[in-house]
Amino acid sequence: MTTPTTKIYTPEYLHDFSAKVFMHFGAPEDEAKLAATVLSTSDLRGIESHGVARLHTYFDMLTLGRINPTPDVTIIRETPSTATVDGDNGLGLVVGPKANEIAMNKAQTAGSGWVSVRNTNHYGIAGYYVLEALKHDLIGWSMTNTTKLVQPLWGGERMLGTNPIAIAFPGLEEPAIVIDMATSACAYGKIEIARRKEVDIPKGWAIDHEGNYTTDPSAMVEGGALSPLGSFREMGGHKGYCLSAMVDILCCVLSGANWGPFAPPFALRQEIPERSVGKGIGHFFGAMRIDGFIEADEFKTQIDDWVRTFRKTKPMPGTPGVVIPGDPEREQEDIRKNAGIPLLIPVVNDLKDIANKTGIEFKD
Amino acid sequence: MTTPTTKIYTPEYLHDFSAKVFMHFGAPEDEAKLAATVLSTSDLRGIESHGVARLHTYFDMLTLGRINPTPDVTIIRETPSTATVDGDNGLGLVVGPKANEIAMNKAQTAGSGWVSVRNTNHYGIAGYYVLEALKHDLIGWSMTNTTKLVQPLWGGERMLGTNPIAIAFPGLEEPAIVIDMATSACAYGKIEIARRKEVDIPKGWAIDHEGNYTTDPSAMVEGGALSPLGSFREMGGHKGYCLSAMVDILCCVLSGANWGPFAPPFALRQEIPERSVGKGIGHFFGAMRIDGFIEADEFKTQIDDWVRTFRKTKPMPGTPGVVIPGDPEREQEDIRKNAGIPLLIPVVNDLKDIANKTGIEFKD
Repeated sequence: MTTPTTKIYTPEYLHDFSAKVFMHFGAPEDEAKLAATVLSTSDLRGIESHGVARLHTYFDMLTLGRINPTPDVTIIRETPSTATVDGDNGLGLVVGPKANEIAMNKAQTAGSGWVSVRNTNHYGIAGYYVLEALKHDLIGWSMTNTTKLVQPLWGGERMLGTNPIAIAFPGLEEPAIVIDMATSACAYGKIEIARRKEVDIPKGWAIDHEGNYTTDPSAMVEGGALSPLGSFREMGGHKGYCLSAMVDILCCVLSGANWGPFAPPFALRQEIPERSVGKGIGHFFGAMRIDGFIEADEFKTQIDDWVRTFRKTKPMPGTPGVVIPGDPEREQEDIRKNAGIPLLIPVVNDLKDIANKTGIEFKD
Repeated sequence: MTTPTTKIYTPEYLHDFSAKVFMHFGAPEDEAKLAATVLSTSDLRGIESHGVARLHTYFDMLTLGRINPTPDVTIIRETPSTATVDGDNGLGLVVGPKANEIAMNKAQTAGSGWVSVRNTNHYGIAGYYVLEALKHDLIGWSMTNTTKLVQPLWGGERMLGTNPIAIAFPGLEEPAIVIDMATSACAYGKIEIARRKEVDIPKGWAIDHEGNYTTDPSAMVEGGALSPLGSFREMGGHKGYCLSAMVDILCCVLSGANWGPFAPPFALRQEIPERSVGKGIGHFFGAMRIDGFIEADEFKTQIDDWVRTFRKTKPMPGTPGVVIPGDPEREQEDIRKNAGIPLLIPVVNDLKDIANKTGIEFKD
């Protein structure tokens, strides 16, 4: 008999637990539930690295007073279609949804809304925000910088975060096209998995502490860096670096947050940057009214056609053929909302540790 | 003695010739000069593939009446910060700048402006438009779809264009950061060069007509396709495909242009798509007032710091170190505006052919 490696929980149970943890620190109930919903969305969509697996990190930061559980999120500058928001060092899981709502509200009156956010913290999956926009027939955009982990092309050290970009487009009969992608060649989680399994990583995922490409996952973890999308100069690695730089500037320089290597650490074990060039990390949200360009139903009908046309692409031999962006996550969500969320045992133990420290009940 | 492979012309001479060619077809002088300026900008910045090297193709399309030399560019729908523009099948080199100006004007009043364009044609380099925005302290965005040439990841055929994205950020003392990148792993021009030199291309640049990765440039040209940025699934090839899809939808589905594989051909030798799903090709422009978010000088001072910080990145061994986006093109421009534009002899011959057919003088 083998030891089980996961335990199943309902999304509702994990949502309830997460919300109670945030309320334990004094977060208002509605904001605590909002933050829990962002985490839940991630777990439901199968992006486990950004769900309750991160709750202990948020817990640590709140315990140490590094994140403000009762932020006063304010607009510090605005025009009819743009704004800069100060997140008052709140949870990104609360500041993000509030800033996204400001972008969506501006879209309703001005046709589009664009919000750059400073003084915030990690906001969960970029995709959550664009899914919210879809509910209002808006095309949502979402970006955030993150703690440094990625080399710029031809750089030998960590200078940028994995800086994701998300955008979504609704269909009428077909499901929405949902793009949510980091601008690095691969996710840090894949390096960790290879390290645990003691297997090599492909050349082009990472560099070591000297700045050379490495196939040893430990060499990346121990002072190396992830490579940008494209990996090598001849394969377009400068383009992945450009995209990451774009996200960094829109989220941080435009709002007055800490850009590039100066993004504050998310986890306690990470080093403190040598200087501060702004407040907290930064996000960037956009929302555009579809009917500011074209009738919404006409747009959605064309998206249906787009999706069906691309599904019919002649497949590359030996592959399943073309996947529509967002399909894998939606399929996971369909499964998980009924079958529950499988948590790895170390994650269960993390949640039990929070339960022990707070007195909030958590069944194992 | 070797035969010279290039001939040098002043930018002014080529600009004057190009403008006369457009006027030959009845384009108003100001629009002809505008179109010539877009081509010149490309040649000056060293992006030779998009400069006068393309003039013969525009000439062919105008000769056959496939492009309207006197378009009536109109707004067909708008909100304070968004618009859809119909280019009346004009030159993209004229429709593009006019639509970009609409975006910039909206930014002045609403804080940002976003314009999706249908019924247009190839618009030159994406970077031209964001350089225009810089002149007004605006952050410009520019995207266009192009004739199909790129596989979606795991697809075995051409379904998307090279669909570029450009965006630029001004510095105060440092030059602007100018991002201008196709969403394919490499440019088609590189395949053509390898084919001429009879050398292999790296695996990951392209597939053959059966949909398999190939290192033979001719196999790509003869019914194959370019690969998206990232190239392979494990290297993030789905992300390059996502970016190309995003550009395709913002430019075409949002405006009512021909998306994906249905983009009309640019050159005469290219096949006509099996059906039409809109009008012409599409562009997407954005402009955001910097001071809609933060004082422009504060932003520029931070960009200076960003640029200096990234230039100081520890270099990857064996490389020149980190390059700031836009540096190579700016350096070319500094050289070429004094030393002139070197044209390959086949390009010179193309221009002479236009001269012969139109009676416009061209010295060789």
